[in-house]
Amino acid sequence: MEAWFFENQTGNFGINTRIKSILHHEHSNFQEITVYETYEFGKMLVLDNAVMFTDKNEFIYHEMLALIPLFSHPNPQNVLIVGGGDGGVVRECLKNPYVKHIDLIEIDKRVVELSKKIFPVVSSCLDDQKVSVLNGDGIDFLKTVNDHYDIILVDSTDPIGPAEGLFKRDFYESTVIALKNDGIFVAQTESPFFNENLIRDIHLIIGKIYKRSSLYLASIPVYPGGLWSFTVGSKKYDPKKINETYREFDFDKCNFKYYTPEIHNSAFILPKFIKELF
Amino acid sequence: MEAWFFENQTGNFGINTRIKSILHHEHSNFQEITVYETYEFGKMLVLDNAVMFTDKNEFIYHEMLALIPLFSHPNPQNVLIVGGGDGGVVRECLKNPYVKHIDLIEIDKRVVELSKKIFPVVSSCLDDQKVSVLNGDGIDFLKTVNDHYDIILVDSTDPIGPAEGLFKRDFYESTVIALKNDGIFVAQTESPFFNENLIRDIHLIIGKIYKRSSLYLASIPVYPGGLWSFTVGSKKYDPKKINETYREFDFDKCNFKYYTPEIHNSAFILPKFIKELF
Repeated sequence: MEAWFFENQTGNFGINTRIKSILHHEHSNFQEITVYETYEFGKMLVLDNAVMFTDKNEFIYHEMLALIPLFSHPNPQNVLIVGGGDGGVVRECLKNPYVKHIDLIEIDKRVVELSKKIFPVVSSCLDDQKVSVLNGDGIDFLKTVNDHYDIILVDSTDPIGPAEGLFKRDFYESTVIALKNDGIFVAQTESPFFNENLIRDIHLIIGKIYKRSSLYLASIPVYPGGLWSFTVGSKKYDPKKINETYREFDFDKCNFKYYTPEIHNSAFILPKFIKELF
Repeated sequence: MEAWFFENQTGNFGINTRIKSILHHEHSNFQEITVYETYEFGKMLVLDNAVMFTDKNEFIYHEMLALIPLFSHPNPQNVLIVGGGDGGVVRECLKNPYVKHIDLIEIDKRVVELSKKIFPVVSSCLDDQKVSVLNGDGIDFLKTVNDHYDIILVDSTDPIGPAEGLFKRDFYESTVIALKNDGIFVAQTESPFFNENLIRDIHLIIGKIYKRSSLYLASIPVYPGGLWSFTVGSKKYDPKKINETYREFDFDKCNFKYYTPEIHNSAFILPKFIKELF
């Protein structure tokens, strides 16, 4: 059998992955959800025909979204994850020794339910006693919060469909209010090869409303062009450096697969054509 | 018209690029050569159905193969390029102020001829007075050379077809003999996501026959997984550092588009799963 999943990533460029079977398919209230069993990557979660992650490389996105802000902050007790109902980012956050509580606000509860059923490694910490999984719209939720979180992470889909509002100035401004006065905000901000304007626009907005705005990168083979960007807004701490608090911390013990203290710094070193976006 | 070029990169994973037209197609004595006009990337050179480069991102591979070894060496007067008949690596080498002469040995003269005709920006320096373009087998050529080059760069296709011998120990040993006693060797060594064994094997061999063996990375969107590796063997100088000679050198003047002095260092910082290959 030669069955291939095709994701048209830019209109004129895309990826093909050979599939063994379709493990699940549904239209939830918010999106089309498909899980494939693939030959190359194990199981693969696809939302509205865009690959979210695969068994084989989910660690990259989840580690890099969570660990850079967490290890830049000396005491990230309260964390909010907007989106990320699969649980991968929750799992990584819990590896930071100071995290006391994580709120996860996911608009589509079917993502949470399916991840628990089909992706046990990704969803393994969703039932942890430190974690509250809330079902709702992150934009509305954030309007009710003031001076509460140390870290806000936006683990969203692309800026079309249910996640569109998560790429707007109003939303970013609500994160400033919801964070404490030394808080850190991070969002996934698409591909530096194909979404230059989006990255530039977000960088400008975050730079205006946060003390620091920085971009960092990670290599993710199933995302467009294989290189992904994350934008950080920080009120106080330098996100490019591991905070002094972790001087004695044993990073090896955590069994990270992508992140290292050296990667923490080098993820912010941008190829010239990306640096010149700003 | 919805016409798409498909490259099956791993057997079970590949990329699709929408094409406007087929600008050239032939079977040379060594390989199938196709040039497409694409919507996403401009013109695209494809050998044996594997993408070599596109107008839009050829600078990444060519800069990163050439500049890392050249700027690690204090006086890289004589350079050999094995393969690379398109001329992209030649163009980057000439940006180093100490380069006096470049020999390029390309097995398939049709690549040189077609690049001059179809890729004027890539091939722009092939007729430079410092450059000798030789037509022949790099493996045979290297057997005739002793203690001559400062730098040897291997700009090859994948290790199947005409380039197979460029991934073998005999060939690497001949580079040691052909280099001066402070020479540097670099080869493209495929994808860290899909060619882990190849990378590990080459690292071991290079580590035995050179004083130093190091791996560095660059993000190239049309290559498998979007992340590419290069293996360096160095007899003396640390390839991870720009040589002291260039302390006053004006890198901005060179109009590099990917390479910067910071990228020179950070390209060697490996994600943990790649570091652990060794």
